[in-house]
Amino acid sequence: MTSDVYEFRPIGIIHSPIKDPAGAPTQGVLAMGIEAQVEIFEPYREGLSDLGGFSHAMLIFVFHRSKGYKTKVTPYLDDQLRGLFATRAPRRPNNIGVTVVRLLEVGETGMRIAGVDMLDETPLLDIKPYVPLFDEQEKSSLGWLEPHLKARMKGDKTRRKADGRFHEK
Amino acid sequence: MTSDVYEFRPIGIIHSPIKDPAGAPTQGVLAMGIEAQVEIFEPYREGLSDLGGFSHAMLIFVFHRSKGYKTKVTPYLDDQLRGLFATRAPRRPNNIGVTVVRLLEVGETGMRIAGVDMLDETPLLDIKPYVPLFDEQEKSSLGWLEPHLKARMKGDKTRRKADGRFHEK
Repeated sequence: MTSDVYEFRPIGIIHSPIKDPAGAPTQGVLAMGIEAQVEIFEPYREGLSDLGGFSHAMLIFVFHRSKGYKTKVTPYLDDQLRGLFATRAPRRPNNIGVTVVRLLEVGETGMRIAGVDMLDETPLLDIKPYVPLFDEQEKSSLGWLEPHLKARMKGDKTRRKADGRFHEK
Repeated sequence: MTSDVYEFRPIGIIHSPIKDPAGAPTQGVLAMGIEAQVEIFEPYREGLSDLGGFSHAMLIFVFHRSKGYKTKVTPYLDDQLRGLFATRAPRRPNNIGVTVVRLLEVGETGMRIAGVDMLDETPLLDIKPYVPLFDEQEKSSLGWLEPHLKARMKGDKTRRKADGRFHEK
């Protein structure tokens, strides 16, 4: 166990229409209709060059409304306690989120994105181009999620939206 | 621009056979033969439950050997300056890396992984299960990478390994 601490400062902010954790989409892919404006702060704007040629980007952000965590949680798609690292729950030891979004427009001061599951005012830490060769894996198995995912994604839409269990009241 | 600072503490450490930034694989998918042991610190170990059922996981880590950054860089797969956020270069305003790895074994104190592009002693910040439905995007376009990727991945293997340009000397 080390006592190292790493400090990160936002490079921008996500202005999302999702104001309330309860009711937020649990994953970006379930929210392709939700768009947001991402504001990039001045010192970092030059880094947006060439990003417009990509259709998708991986955003790395802070779950800024998530405080504390438990090492076992009941995920949205299940009814049993599961190890935290086998879930995407937003309350984590380091409350970092990763979502692949669709790039609608990349401008000089920011970008417009779709597939948004981030709350309004989410601090953005990094943007990486999405490259299937690097990020996709063939023949993946999905553990506890496997029996739930297909069935529930097709039928029961209630679990597609968060109920606020992972956020502060 | 906000002055917010977010502090993150490692949940574990990656014991990798890659000791030197020069010669390191530039992406995990190019390094499926490279294995590493990931040690998870005691307070977080319970969170590993149920992860063993997944074939792949997304690791979020610190590029601990990368200092400073430039908003335009020449990536390994290209000969021109590109905006930093359109590249995967490890020197970034927030030096956070994301790699999808194959889970060979998940134990009580850590895990054994393959597809390793992290340097030895890399601080681990988070583990998320890899779920293609959430993380994969169909019909993606790849900007400046597109003309380079297929050709170079097949033929020219020299760019598959880092030359150390993004790390401290």
